[in-house]
Amino acid sequence: MSTPMERLRALEKQLFAYTYAACVINYDDATVAPPESSEGRGEALEALSAAEHRLLTGSGLPGLLAAARESALGEQEAAELRELQRMYDEASKIPAEEYAAFAKLASTAQNVWAKARAADDFAAFAPYLERILDTRRRWAGYLAPGKDPYDYWLDHYERGANTRMLDRFFDELQGRIVPLLARIQTEGRPIRTDFLWQDWPIAQQKELAHRVMRRMGVDAAHCAMGESAHPFTTEFYKGDVRITTHYNPRDMTSSLYSVVHESGHALYELHTADRLKYTVLAHGASMGVHESQSRFYENYLGRSLAFIRALWPDLTELFPSQLAGVSPEELYAAVNRAEPGLIRTEADELTYCLHILVRYRLEKRLMAGELAVKDLPEAWNRLMKDILGLDVPSNAQGCLQDIHWSCGDLGYFPSYALGSAYGAQMLRELKKSLDPDALMEAGDFGPVNAWLAEHIWQYGMEKQPGWLVENACGGPFDPACFAEYLEAKYTALYGLA
Amino acid sequence: MSTPMERLRALEKQLFAYTYAACVINYDDATVAPPESSEGRGEALEALSAAEHRLLTGSGLPGLLAAARESALGEQEAAELRELQRMYDEASKIPAEEYAAFAKLASTAQNVWAKARAADDFAAFAPYLERILDTRRRWAGYLAPGKDPYDYWLDHYERGANTRMLDRFFDELQGRIVPLLARIQTEGRPIRTDFLWQDWPIAQQKELAHRVMRRMGVDAAHCAMGESAHPFTTEFYKGDVRITTHYNPRDMTSSLYSVVHESGHALYELHTADRLKYTVLAHGASMGVHESQSRFYENYLGRSLAFIRALWPDLTELFPSQLAGVSPEELYAAVNRAEPGLIRTEADELTYCLHILVRYRLEKRLMAGELAVKDLPEAWNRLMKDILGLDVPSNAQGCLQDIHWSCGDLGYFPSYALGSAYGAQMLRELKKSLDPDALMEAGDFGPVNAWLAEHIWQYGMEKQPGWLVENACGGPFDPACFAEYLEAKYTALYGLA
Repeated sequence: MSTPMERLRALEKQLFAYTYAACVINYDDATVAPPESSEGRGEALEALSAAEHRLLTGSGLPGLLAAARESALGEQEAAELRELQRMYDEASKIPAEEYAAFAKLASTAQNVWAKARAADDFAAFAPYLERILDTRRRWAGYLAPGKDPYDYWLDHYERGANTRMLDRFFDELQGRIVPLLARIQTEGRPIRTDFLWQDWPIAQQKELAHRVMRRMGVDAAHCAMGESAHPFTTEFYKGDVRITTHYNPRDMTSSLYSVVHESGHALYELHTADRLKYTVLAHGASMGVHESQSRFYENYLGRSLAFIRALWPDLTELFPSQLAGVSPEELYAAVNRAEPGLIRTEADELTYCLHILVRYRLEKRLMAGELAVKDLPEAWNRLMKDILGLDVPSNAQGCLQDIHWSCGDLGYFPSYALGSAYGAQMLRELKKSLDPDALMEAGDFGPVNAWLAEHIWQYGMEKQPGWLVENACGGPFDPACFAEYLEAKYTALYGLA
Repeated sequence: MSTPMERLRALEKQLFAYTYAACVINYDDATVAPPESSEGRGEALEALSAAEHRLLTGSGLPGLLAAARESALGEQEAAELRELQRMYDEASKIPAEEYAAFAKLASTAQNVWAKARAADDFAAFAPYLERILDTRRRWAGYLAPGKDPYDYWLDHYERGANTRMLDRFFDELQGRIVPLLARIQTEGRPIRTDFLWQDWPIAQQKELAHRVMRRMGVDAAHCAMGESAHPFTTEFYKGDVRITTHYNPRDMTSSLYSVVHESGHALYELHTADRLKYTVLAHGASMGVHESQSRFYENYLGRSLAFIRALWPDLTELFPSQLAGVSPEELYAAVNRAEPGLIRTEADELTYCLHILVRYRLEKRLMAGELAVKDLPEAWNRLMKDILGLDVPSNAQGCLQDIHWSCGDLGYFPSYALGSAYGAQMLRELKKSLDPDALMEAGDFGPVNAWLAEHIWQYGMEKQPGWLVENACGGPFDPACFAEYLEAKYTALYGLA
C-alpha cells in the first residue's frame, strides 16, 4: 500500500516522538522538577531509549532504505536516508551489551568526576578516563574501521571536521591571538568594570530578558523562557522551543548575554523549513553551526556598541541607580574586556578559543595514545602556561574543570571554537549586503534574521556544515577570518596602535 | 531464562515509561508551554500512545498472563495480573479503527463544545453528544456484553459502582440535603462574606501556599508546585508528584483551598508502598478514592475552625490589612457558607453533591435511551429547579457547562460525590482513635497522615475501592454517613435548631 519513503516517514515520526519525550523530560528536570526525583526519571528515560533503539534496529530499516533508494529521490529525501542510515549504523554496529555498559560507565564516571573535582583528586578519576578512552577508540573501529579514531569522533560531532583542518585552525589562532593578548596586557588602555558588580534586582532582570527576546524577534507564541542552573536551549520541535537563563543578583550581564546567546539558538530552530518537521532533518545542522548562530547574536550583535546604545533606554529605565554615571561606551568596553583566566566557562570572547585549543591538543594526543592519562595534569598545566601564561594551582581548576570527558565526549570541544569562527566568516559576508551596526542601533533584527534564515536556518540538517558555511560565506571555511575579526575588534577596544 | 512474572514486570516498566512521558508532557503543557505549541505535542502524544498500544497488544500478553497464573501468586502479583488483563482487554477488544475514530471525535467534540458553550448553542453540540453516546454504548457491548452500558462505565471509572448503589446514595442525599438547604435559606443566620473579595497580593498568596504544603507534611523533595489555569495533581511516580494552583488576586481562599485539596491528592501518591513502584499498581486506587482523600483534607480538615485557628498567625502576618477586624470564626463561616448556584465548579460543600445528582440522573437516562439528546436542556433545567430551586437562564450556564461529556466521560461525575461520601465515612472511623480538631489546632497533620497511609495510601491500586472503604471504615459503604455529616455541620454553622 504505502511506498518505502512513506514507511520511512512514519518511522521518522515515531523517532520524533521519542526525542520529543526525552527533551520535555530533561527540560522539566533542569527547570522545575523537585530535587529528589531522579530515580523514576532515569528509569523512564532508559526504557524510552531502549524502545527507540528497538525501533531503529528492529523495523527492517536496511531493507526499507534499500527499497527507497530504488526510486528517484529529491534532495530532502536523500538527506533523510543519509541520516537514517547513520542512525541505524550507530545503533546496530555497536554491540548492545557494550552500549549498555558504556551508559553505565559514563553515568558512574560523571559522579566520580564531580567528587574528584570537589576533592581535587585526579587519581580517582584517571581510571575512568582510561576506560572511556578505550571504549571510544574501540567504537571508532566498529563504526569507521581504518579511520583515525579521533578523526572519527571529530566528524561525529561536527560533520567534515578533522585534525588536518583543526590543526591549521588552531595554529592560526595561536599565532595571532597569543601575541595579541600579550599586547593587550602590556599596552592596552585600562577598562572600567567597577559598576558590573552591584545589586541588580531579579524582577528587573527578568523584565529585561523578556524585552531582549522580543526585540530579537523570538516569537513568544512558540518559545518560552525558564530558569535553570546553567542556561541552555532545547527544541521540542520548530513550534516549541525553550530557552533558559540564570539570574545572578550581583551581575546583570550574566543573564543578559545568556538570553541573547540562547535566543540565537532558538531563532535557528524556530526557522527551520516546515517541510522538515517531524523528519530526522528537523533540527540545526550541527553543534558547530548552532554555536555559530548563538555566538553571532551574543558576540557579533549583542556585544556591539550599537546594540548597547539601542538597549540603553531600557537599561536605564530598569536600572536607573545602578547605571547612574555609566555610559554605553563604558558598558560596551566592560562586557568585551579580555583577561586570561583558568576557567573556560568564564572566559571572554578573545581567550575562549585558547581554552579550546588546549583541550583539542590534549584530546588528540590522548586518543592517539601519545599522552598517558596519568600525565594529563602535567601536560595541561604546561599548555596553559604556554598559551594563556597562567600557572594552574589545582587540577580542580585545571584538567578536572569540565564534565565533557566524563560523559565520553572526546572530540566535542572543537565545535565550540569552530562555531565562533564560522560566525565571524558569516559576519564578513553579511556585511557585503547589510549594515549590522546601523540595524542594531535602530533596534532592527529583521534583516539579519532574514539573512541567516535564508542562508542557514531553513536547511535544518538537510545540508552539512561545510555546505552551509560555503553557502553563507561564498567560499570554504577560512580559519584566518576569525583571527582577523578578533584582531580588529581588540586592537580598537584596547587602543593598540 | 526469566519467569513469566519477571517478563511481565519488564513490560510493566515499559508501560510506566510511556505513562511517565505522557504525564510530563501534559504537565508541561498546562504550566509552562508556549501558547501555540500544541501541534507537535499532539503528534508526539499520538505516536507514544500508538507505541504503548502496540506494546500492550503485540507482546504476547495473554500467553504471559496464562503462564504466570500457573505459579502460586502473591496478592500483589495477582492484582498486577488483574490490571494487566483489564488493560489488555480494553486495548484489544475495541477495534483499532474505532479507537482512533473516537479519539478524533472527542477531540473535535471538545472544540465544538467550547464554541457551543460560548455561543449558548446547544443544537451545535447535540449531534456530537449523540455520536459519543452511541460509541460509548457500543464499546460497553464489546467490553462487557450483556451488562447495562451505564453500569459498565460507572464501574470503569469507579470499580464496584453501579446504578443500584448510586440510586440509593443519591436518593438518600436528595431526601436529606434538599430539605436542609431549604431550612438554611429560610431560618439560617446570616454569614459575613464582605472581606473575602479584596486585593490579596500574589506574592503573599504564594508564600501561604508553600507554608500550607509544608505544614500538611507534603515532602518538597518529591513534590513541586506549579501554576495552571485549573488546579490539578499529577504523579510521574511516587518520587515525583506535581500539584498546581491558580492565584485569584481578588480571592485568597481560591488558591488556599486548591492547595489543600491538591496536597491531599499528592500525599496519597507520595505514600503508596515502594513495592508497587513501576508496576501497574503504582497509583491511587480510583478517582473516587482519590477524591475522598483530597476532599478529606480540603473540607474535613482544611475547612475546620481548628485548622483556620492554627493558620491564623500565618494569615495575619501575610495579610495584616486584609484581615484586620476579621475573626477566625468569621473566616470559618465564610469559607463554609452554602448557597445554591448554577455552576458545579463554584459550588460549596453542601450543594456540590446535588449538582452531581442532577448529572447522574440525566446520564443514566441518556445512556439507556430514555432521554433523547434534543430533550436534554429541558430535562436539565427541570431537575435544577426541583433539586436546587434555580431557574437556568441559558444552556451555557446549564447542560453545556462541563467539558466531561464532550470528552466521552459519561459515568465519571458520580465518583466526585462518592469521594466526599467515602471521606465522611473515613472521618467517622478515624475519630474513634484520633481527635482531628485537637490535631488541627496544634498544626499537627502527622497522626492523620499516618492513619490514612496505613488504611488507604499504601495499597495503591492493589486493592479495589470497596475493599479500601471497608478497611478504612470498618464496614461497607454507608450512603447515610455523608448526609449525617452534612446535617451536623450545617445545622451548627447556620444555628438551626
